[in-house]
Amino acid sequence: MAQQNYAQDSATIKKIYDNALTSYESYENLRYLTKNIGARLSGSPQAAAAVEWTRQVMEKMDLDTVYLQPVMVPHWVRGDKEIGRVTNSKLMGTVDMNIAALGGSVGTGKQGLSAEVVEVHNFEELEKLGKKKVKGKIVFFNRPFDNTHVITGAAYGGAVDQRGGGPAAAAKLGAVGVIVRSMTNDIQDIPHTGSTRYEDGVEKIPAAAISTKDANQLSSLLKDDQNLKFYMRMTSETLPDVLSYNVIGEIKGTEKPDEIIVVGGHLDSWDVGEGAHDDGTGCMQSIEVLRLFNDLGIKPKRTVRAVLFMNEENGLRGGRKYAEIAKAKGEKHIAAIESDAGGFTPRGFGIDGNDGQYSKVLTWKPLLAPYGLHDLTRGGGGADIGPLKGQGTVALIGFRPDSQRYFDYHHTIIDTFEQVNRREMQLGAASMASLVYLISQHGLDDSAAKVQK
Amino acid sequence: MAQQNYAQDSATIKKIYDNALTSYESYENLRYLTKNIGARLSGSPQAAAAVEWTRQVMEKMDLDTVYLQPVMVPHWVRGDKEIGRVTNSKLMGTVDMNIAALGGSVGTGKQGLSAEVVEVHNFEELEKLGKKKVKGKIVFFNRPFDNTHVITGAAYGGAVDQRGGGPAAAAKLGAVGVIVRSMTNDIQDIPHTGSTRYEDGVEKIPAAAISTKDANQLSSLLKDDQNLKFYMRMTSETLPDVLSYNVIGEIKGTEKPDEIIVVGGHLDSWDVGEGAHDDGTGCMQSIEVLRLFNDLGIKPKRTVRAVLFMNEENGLRGGRKYAEIAKAKGEKHIAAIESDAGGFTPRGFGIDGNDGQYSKVLTWKPLLAPYGLHDLTRGGGGADIGPLKGQGTVALIGFRPDSQRYFDYHHTIIDTFEQVNRREMQLGAASMASLVYLISQHGLDDSAAKVQK
Repeated sequence: MAQQNYAQDSATIKKIYDNALTSYESYENLRYLTKNIGARLSGSPQAAAAVEWTRQVMEKMDLDTVYLQPVMVPHWVRGDKEIGRVTNSKLMGTVDMNIAALGGSVGTGKQGLSAEVVEVHNFEELEKLGKKKVKGKIVFFNRPFDNTHVITGAAYGGAVDQRGGGPAAAAKLGAVGVIVRSMTNDIQDIPHTGSTRYEDGVEKIPAAAISTKDANQLSSLLKDDQNLKFYMRMTSETLPDVLSYNVIGEIKGTEKPDEIIVVGGHLDSWDVGEGAHDDGTGCMQSIEVLRLFNDLGIKPKRTVRAVLFMNEENGLRGGRKYAEIAKAKGEKHIAAIESDAGGFTPRGFGIDGNDGQYSKVLTWKPLLAPYGLHDLTRGGGGADIGPLKGQGTVALIGFRPDSQRYFDYHHTIIDTFEQVNRREMQLGAASMASLVYLISQHGLDDSAAKVQK
Repeated sequence: MAQQNYAQDSATIKKIYDNALTSYESYENLRYLTKNIGARLSGSPQAAAAVEWTRQVMEKMDLDTVYLQPVMVPHWVRGDKEIGRVTNSKLMGTVDMNIAALGGSVGTGKQGLSAEVVEVHNFEELEKLGKKKVKGKIVFFNRPFDNTHVITGAAYGGAVDQRGGGPAAAAKLGAVGVIVRSMTNDIQDIPHTGSTRYEDGVEKIPAAAISTKDANQLSSLLKDDQNLKFYMRMTSETLPDVLSYNVIGEIKGTEKPDEIIVVGGHLDSWDVGEGAHDDGTGCMQSIEVLRLFNDLGIKPKRTVRAVLFMNEENGLRGGRKYAEIAKAKGEKHIAAIESDAGGFTPRGFGIDGNDGQYSKVLTWKPLLAPYGLHDLTRGGGGADIGPLKGQGTVALIGFRPDSQRYFDYHHTIIDTFEQVNRREMQLGAASMASLVYLISQHGLDDSAAKVQK
């Protein structure tokens, strides 16, 4: 690997961090997004406001191009505040429980739904119960996070199948509803929403998340009282698709403008809370990368494009549309970096690329480690950039902030601006800008992979 | 360096993390300390309660020894809530300002003190003003944190001379009072207290911290209006010394009981807030190290001693007493680890030791890096363990958590339990336990240093 010009790169990276750490720009943008616009689920008026506002923010910057990329998105609405209740516990009588409809769930009808509950921890247990014991019941998926994972995303990955696939699997066995333990490390009163996936040809049954505290209590009540009934009422529904947009801003490369580096996050959020860490920070950091290039007079050799994807949470239509159009246009993406793991202190990047691309990133470790970016490992990527996979030799790179607090707030009413620390968020933006800068100057050599073929 | 038995060490460290991450023990202890006892400045009844409660907590554990080490400590009290006020601003008339007496400061008398203000940013500016321009005035030290430091402790280190030495330096030139910009990266309404050091033979003048937001406003007002007057009222005073204690618990080593490894934090806190990150977490983590050894059946070859030091904040009497007695007893300390930088996600350890000791720690990097402990660098130590320096070849080791949020809360009313994340704190305890375990099994070879001599 050729020796880099470390001294100049090092000086530029220092300027990037110095600027980011003495600026409130990205953080104040996040304040506007979360406080003046707020939650912005795909199809909502707030999502439209977020599109228009971020377009205006980037229009005011000195960019080469700012444009909207149309995409039709799902339009699901939560309806009334959900009611969840154990109605006839032997021990405690009526017990209110905190639930939140899963994204995409059908409602229960205004009368609500009442049924006995069967608790399971995985799909094997469910299958074993069979139609006889599941029919007419509410299935309660209650497998907790495995908290021994140091990286909380691994615990999420080990539990989220219940939320995504649980309702469809339960419906196949005749269940009338599903409640799923919230996806969090914490023991809280707050339910965590998130998408579920129905299957074609399988009945759509109402599905809700239940807070971890209430999940524990429900499980405990069920031990003594297998005939207890759970009442749930949700008026959620899916409306016709709505026209929305990915928001895109771009600085053209001076030497290789056809080689594109994407940096992005997703602009939509769940309809509860303010979508601060998920993923207001990722979007504001992506815009901040362009601002840092501009304010520091960095002219990238390759094109740098910030993409604020629409509809990551319940459809991924924005990510798919972006990849579809990139392919149709024959664009050459060399790297795509996504920030969708919160605005916490940076730890590194996960690189989903070939050996040459990964090796290239590793040569930059001496430049990045002084800023706490030690975790330069395989894996990573991101939901919105995922559909780009296989287009040429694009490397998909996931920004990795510290993960400990992410699932305390994820998909809840407490994912708010107040949970974001300015320095942590600005450090994230600087980390992303530094990696984008290095790729924009040096490219991402994939020769090693070619040799292997 | 001999190849370690990595497999067994790795398995033990995994057990330590697994246990810590599925336990709420240390975190719940912190809840008790912060919520049921609260702020615990040396000499206060709450400090006495903290001594007795932590003694009882360790007594209930299966330790070889639990004892109190008597030490006389200063007894400073804040008195009434402070008043700070610009009384005659041309632009705004009367403007209330948030101030907090610096620890150790004399009061103003009940009538308070009113004087014109001179702003300086360092001692050179102060000297340059000279007696003529300082006499009879309140000196306003207003050098902000240099936020470009990635590690916030470096910014603190670059600013805290104003708080520690400012009042004495100003008094030498005839100043009647001092206000010091709060030691924080953030722009807040909250003043940050902390110690100041008077000098023998120099008049003791009242000194207070002012919030960063008010410091900015005061500076701005002074630009137009150099004759504005600042009124400050504080009834703080120093009472006679009080008997207090370091609290110590110990597991005797099975093979080399005379070789002692200290793990500790400081039990006292400032009198505002709850002393959660500073340093409730360090103390509860130190107790947690012993709990983890016990619950996992780890029998250390060398002695492991948790020390909860008294009076770090305004005297360091506990740390000095501990070192004094260790010396008198001829104890052999091979390492002392302090956690006094908050209960945030672990990043590593700073090692103040000889080449052999540092090299030894580096051989453990493959065991520690998987848990995010990448920063194993020179430097570190801690205030309380500092006085041990030079006793034999003890290595002084500072636990290094992520530093971004620490000075948002440091020495304020918002250093509360709510600012501590369970997983971050428990990860810290596991990190400390893992390093203590490795030292307890393998010692800290200092042969390299001996060779160098």
